[in-house]
Amino acid sequence: MTGSTPAPFTADDYRARMERAARSAADAGLAGLLVAPGPDMVWLTGYTPTAVTERLTVLVLTPGHDPVLVVPTLEAPDAEHATGASGLTLHDWTDGKDPYAVTAALLGGRGLPHSPKGAEGAPIGISDNTWAMHLLGLQRTLPGTSYASLTDALPMLRAVKDAAELDLLAAAGAAADRAFEEIRKVPFAGRRESDVGHDLADLLRRFGHSQVDFTIVGSGPNGANPHHEVGDRVIQDGDMVVLDFGGLKDGYGSDTTRTVHVGEPTEEERTVHDIVRAAQEEGFRAVRPGVACQEVDRAARAVITDAGYGACFIHRTGHGIGVTTHEPPYMIEGEEQPLVPGMCFSVEPGIYLPGRFGVRIEDIVTVTEDGGRRFNNTTREMVIVG
Amino acid sequence: MTGSTPAPFTADDYRARMERAARSAADAGLAGLLVAPGPDMVWLTGYTPTAVTERLTVLVLTPGHDPVLVVPTLEAPDAEHATGASGLTLHDWTDGKDPYAVTAALLGGRGLPHSPKGAEGAPIGISDNTWAMHLLGLQRTLPGTSYASLTDALPMLRAVKDAAELDLLAAAGAAADRAFEEIRKVPFAGRRESDVGHDLADLLRRFGHSQVDFTIVGSGPNGANPHHEVGDRVIQDGDMVVLDFGGLKDGYGSDTTRTVHVGEPTEEERTVHDIVRAAQEEGFRAVRPGVACQEVDRAARAVITDAGYGACFIHRTGHGIGVTTHEPPYMIEGEEQPLVPGMCFSVEPGIYLPGRFGVRIEDIVTVTEDGGRRFNNTTREMVIVG
Repeated sequence: MTGSTPAPFTADDYRARMERAARSAADAGLAGLLVAPGPDMVWLTGYTPTAVTERLTVLVLTPGHDPVLVVPTLEAPDAEHATGASGLTLHDWTDGKDPYAVTAALLGGRGLPHSPKGAEGAPIGISDNTWAMHLLGLQRTLPGTSYASLTDALPMLRAVKDAAELDLLAAAGAAADRAFEEIRKVPFAGRRESDVGHDLADLLRRFGHSQVDFTIVGSGPNGANPHHEVGDRVIQDGDMVVLDFGGLKDGYGSDTTRTVHVGEPTEEERTVHDIVRAAQEEGFRAVRPGVACQEVDRAARAVITDAGYGACFIHRTGHGIGVTTHEPPYMIEGEEQPLVPGMCFSVEPGIYLPGRFGVRIEDIVTVTEDGGRRFNNTTREMVIVG
Repeated sequence: MTGSTPAPFTADDYRARMERAARSAADAGLAGLLVAPGPDMVWLTGYTPTAVTERLTVLVLTPGHDPVLVVPTLEAPDAEHATGASGLTLHDWTDGKDPYAVTAALLGGRGLPHSPKGAEGAPIGISDNTWAMHLLGLQRTLPGTSYASLTDALPMLRAVKDAAELDLLAAAGAAADRAFEEIRKVPFAGRRESDVGHDLADLLRRFGHSQVDFTIVGSGPNGANPHHEVGDRVIQDGDMVVLDFGGLKDGYGSDTTRTVHVGEPTEEERTVHDIVRAAQEEGFRAVRPGVACQEVDRAARAVITDAGYGACFIHRTGHGIGVTTHEPPYMIEGEEQPLVPGMCFSVEPGIYLPGRFGVRIEDIVTVTEDGGRRFNNTTREMVIVG
């Protein structure tokens, strides 16, 4: 069912992205880019192979040359149907051939630095998620080359979204919001976390998601583990419950968190929830062009630290989103990248009290010309569930 | 929902697998093994992280030392709950630390060959699907080390299944067979391939699959592209339709293909189907301990070649299956690995007539003491659908 809901991009969109990527690579001092199946490839070409396997598929981008997609012969007919295929040349290889030699010949024909062992030329950028076996194959075949992961070398390659991408992210956010509006009506007390997680996944699909990436239901003490997914724990009256869910709709991501309470909360629970809500608000207010990513983290963190819970906010404030639900830019201390209109990321502070409960509130936010705009708009007040 | 249906293995099972893997690594001349999240890790430890991300998670195995799992602090609570966790030491690292330095220190403390640049010691085996960014991080931190992909260095690591694994594969195959028995009853003519693909996915889930890896519905000319998944083509009366589907049930794979016909076939269609059925039968009959993998390919291919369709069988005859639906051993010319009881793989010859139709028939087969046993047992006669 791969690619059954194609994104509304044209061959020209993909051609422009590939050109921009090759130019950015040159500007960053890279000799070229090797792009593996996954988010980089789908963003650059619209192509998603049936499966990612030991058979090498790689997009070769070098400035001033036409893009080439090295692809197993069996996959070539499907690759030809990708929207971006008209902007590239397919170079297929059959079982039994050495795909690294094919790729090396392509790179060599473009005057790629290929110096004797020991003396390394300009590095080639390579998708983070390229299989190690393929990188080893390239290193073996081209011993004079060096490599840099795309996120290290060009972290902002996919970070600034165009108008069509913003529409898709807004629609994915609205769908996740509809899922929250429904899930708050279901019974919580007496059901397992996994049951509520199943409901959430069904709702995301019902509202148009083709892929559910996570449905975190952290009740009571499980809410104090930010990466707990769902378990067999039966939700109790009196529990705080962290609901963090998202996935892909029409190729773009959603990711939102609300923390609900089963029955009446205690005063402490209200207080902690209020602090997280204020922190999320301050993180959002810090968003505007030119501000460093770390300032968003600092703004949210200051509220929690000032309230005395600094040691209980044990993760960064946010991560980017686009064709994946988890990518640069990161809202984290030390990240000096300035925000640019069109960047999209989560703002999701939390407080975690080990063995007791956790609270997290998360919206996807995009940078506008003069501030930020949220793609999640359900209430951030504590919702009481049954 | 990750790991919601744990495989029935004990901590001792995982401990034994880790010991065996470390020993096999030493026998193969490797300094140790670095195992990434994915099939290798789940097979060795039972652990599947919530998501595979840019945060390094890696299992370090070296002969004579206890296994160590390097894991992000946020993920440590979930990793502790893996069945195999009691057989290893967790070594967690927090955001901001350098996980490659952590891993390097572990390897260094074990006397790992770490020679000056240029002089390389024994290679370290590394999971094929380890992210390139992680391999680059390790190479940067440990410039004197060399690496070999696990499939190159230890291709048969997971190939021989134990009794419990065989039971799980048999159950997955039986579930896929039940899906075929249901799908042959649904209407084909006038519906899109994607509709039938959707039905197949629903059936696999209904019969216990937690993950659907592929639902190929190749009708008419689309059947001549072995990797075509599903499309918008409306299936016609008179079409041949290749149905190739599978996924994971309780952590183990299914993968079966039957080619059905909408209404009465032509004589040529019957002939081609009969040839493929005979080829599949001969491939199956070639299976017994000690026979080289390539002999299974040759046995099936000879039938097709002798019938004059050799040029139309454009892929290898089979691939292994286990915790993935696609792994070594491969039934392909040049693969001299002898078959061993407990190995499991597909036997799936096909004939593809470009622009017209294709036929493929596939069963999963395991090697027994004196031959082979099929895990798929629906009829291999051509089924007529409506």
